[in-house]
Amino acid sequence: MTAGIYAARQGLNTLMITKDFGGQMGRKAVAIENYPGFLKISGKELIDRFKKHFQKYKIPVVFDAVVKIKKLQRGFLVLTEEKRRFRALSVIIASGAEPRSLKIPDEKKYIGRGLSYCVVCDGPLFKGKRVAVIGGGNSGFEAAYFLSKIARKVYILEGASEVRADAENRERIRRLKNVKVITNALIERIKGDQFIKGIIYRDKSTNEQKELSVEGVFVEIGSQPATSFAKGLVDLTPRGEIKVDSETYQTRTPGLFAVGDCNEGAFRQIITACGEGAKAVLAAHQYLQKLTLKRKR
Amino acid sequence: MTAGIYAARQGLNTLMITKDFGGQMGRKAVAIENYPGFLKISGKELIDRFKKHFQKYKIPVVFDAVVKIKKLQRGFLVLTEEKRRFRALSVIIASGAEPRSLKIPDEKKYIGRGLSYCVVCDGPLFKGKRVAVIGGGNSGFEAAYFLSKIARKVYILEGASEVRADAENRERIRRLKNVKVITNALIERIKGDQFIKGIIYRDKSTNEQKELSVEGVFVEIGSQPATSFAKGLVDLTPRGEIKVDSETYQTRTPGLFAVGDCNEGAFRQIITACGEGAKAVLAAHQYLQKLTLKRKR
Repeated sequence: MTAGIYAARQGLNTLMITKDFGGQMGRKAVAIENYPGFLKISGKELIDRFKKHFQKYKIPVVFDAVVKIKKLQRGFLVLTEEKRRFRALSVIIASGAEPRSLKIPDEKKYIGRGLSYCVVCDGPLFKGKRVAVIGGGNSGFEAAYFLSKIARKVYILEGASEVRADAENRERIRRLKNVKVITNALIERIKGDQFIKGIIYRDKSTNEQKELSVEGVFVEIGSQPATSFAKGLVDLTPRGEIKVDSETYQTRTPGLFAVGDCNEGAFRQIITACGEGAKAVLAAHQYLQKLTLKRKR
Repeated sequence: MTAGIYAARQGLNTLMITKDFGGQMGRKAVAIENYPGFLKISGKELIDRFKKHFQKYKIPVVFDAVVKIKKLQRGFLVLTEEKRRFRALSVIIASGAEPRSLKIPDEKKYIGRGLSYCVVCDGPLFKGKRVAVIGGGNSGFEAAYFLSKIARKVYILEGASEVRADAENRERIRRLKNVKVITNALIERIKGDQFIKGIIYRDKSTNEQKELSVEGVFVEIGSQPATSFAKGLVDLTPRGEIKVDSETYQTRTPGLFAVGDCNEGAFRQIITACGEGAKAVLAAHQYLQKLTLKRKR
């Protein structure tokens, strides 16, 4: 959205293709306290503020998913899931990251039947029930905290022998009676019929198979950059992040930029993604001006 | 302020040394419309929002100007104008840029006597009077627009044969009857006694010396990075900007970082400066963790 605001203000003919407004901001389980200007704001509220700002510039928005970007002799061709095709002289990829999946049998089958990757979206459905959060990092602990106010019992399952959540998150969870942290838990499969009834894991310290009776399973084991559609035009890190010039955010293909969580940058914050979006547009503008100059000659 | 917010949230023992809150944001002659989340906000208001956010973390603030940073065997020594001395393991320079001066005789003498580098601060004093804005870039045009609602007559003086302001700014000024743009105007000196009475310039197209009767002169010929106190520890560009690694914003001295308008970055926006501030703190945090580890060994 920042790239959109900047592009419109630079007078560039701009189109946004997106699945939704806000992406990961909408999946945050706790309030945002580190976007300067807002002491404490929910992800949803901050998205609304950004959206209102973005919409001021009347940029057309296509709600669709990009499946492929191709290089043309001049500019790019962008193809979407719903078979739309768009041409552009420059493309800024700001596709963020998607939740990482468990990679266990039947995972897809249980999505919407007790399995969720978004505690903010689906947590409220589990009022008074027993749920498990998979992942002992900050996002797992934040999800568990969010769920502790809704569910009867919350388990945090972590595969390693220690959780990775920071001190503040650990302390907040330690004080809650209805949250239990289980380490060394290797998830093996989900048990259920139409809906989830439990989760089966192996205790790595004893090699015992164990079962927890839960109706909800929330997966919080990190995210992976959404970059598959750019293959062939960009260099990727082993983790699938797009390599960029760290000043202009241009990829190895001139005119193609990547900002925010989809690129290789180490610091993944809302404010840093916004800054990168603005920089990429200003660099794209320079790129387009040179392109036009060349054509005029 | 973003660096401060992030440093406090990372649990770092943080001190801010500054002349004021907000720096250049407070000198902006027009509203800010490109900080995502606020459709339109005055510099003063946005500073207040940032300040409130920053102050939430109770970071001590010293109102003073840094005159020198020295490298110690371990960490840094920071010296101020008022002879204060501070030690720190890591320093983030976010000193921004200062208005560039005209470099003509008696310039210093007339500061506060009709000469100003801040139209927002001093413009209101010239109600119904005649004023000149030196500089035909965007900031000169924005200053003239601001002044056009206060002063009786506004001259924009530009040394080159064409102004550098963008189309939007030129169009907005063109419609105003009380603003006149004069190009090829080389400023020679200010005329006055206790206060400014006029400005004398040479018309480069005819080589004639000319005079304008004005009581106010606003200098808007760009800015220069405030970096003199860091000499010796950092590499500077010919323009005096601090050279940094564009991912971590670290200077050539480990533990010393530079973000925002004081570094060599090409894109000077509020949102990009904020993003850099956050990244530098996260990089500084990593630096400090390594330092502590080394010491423990």
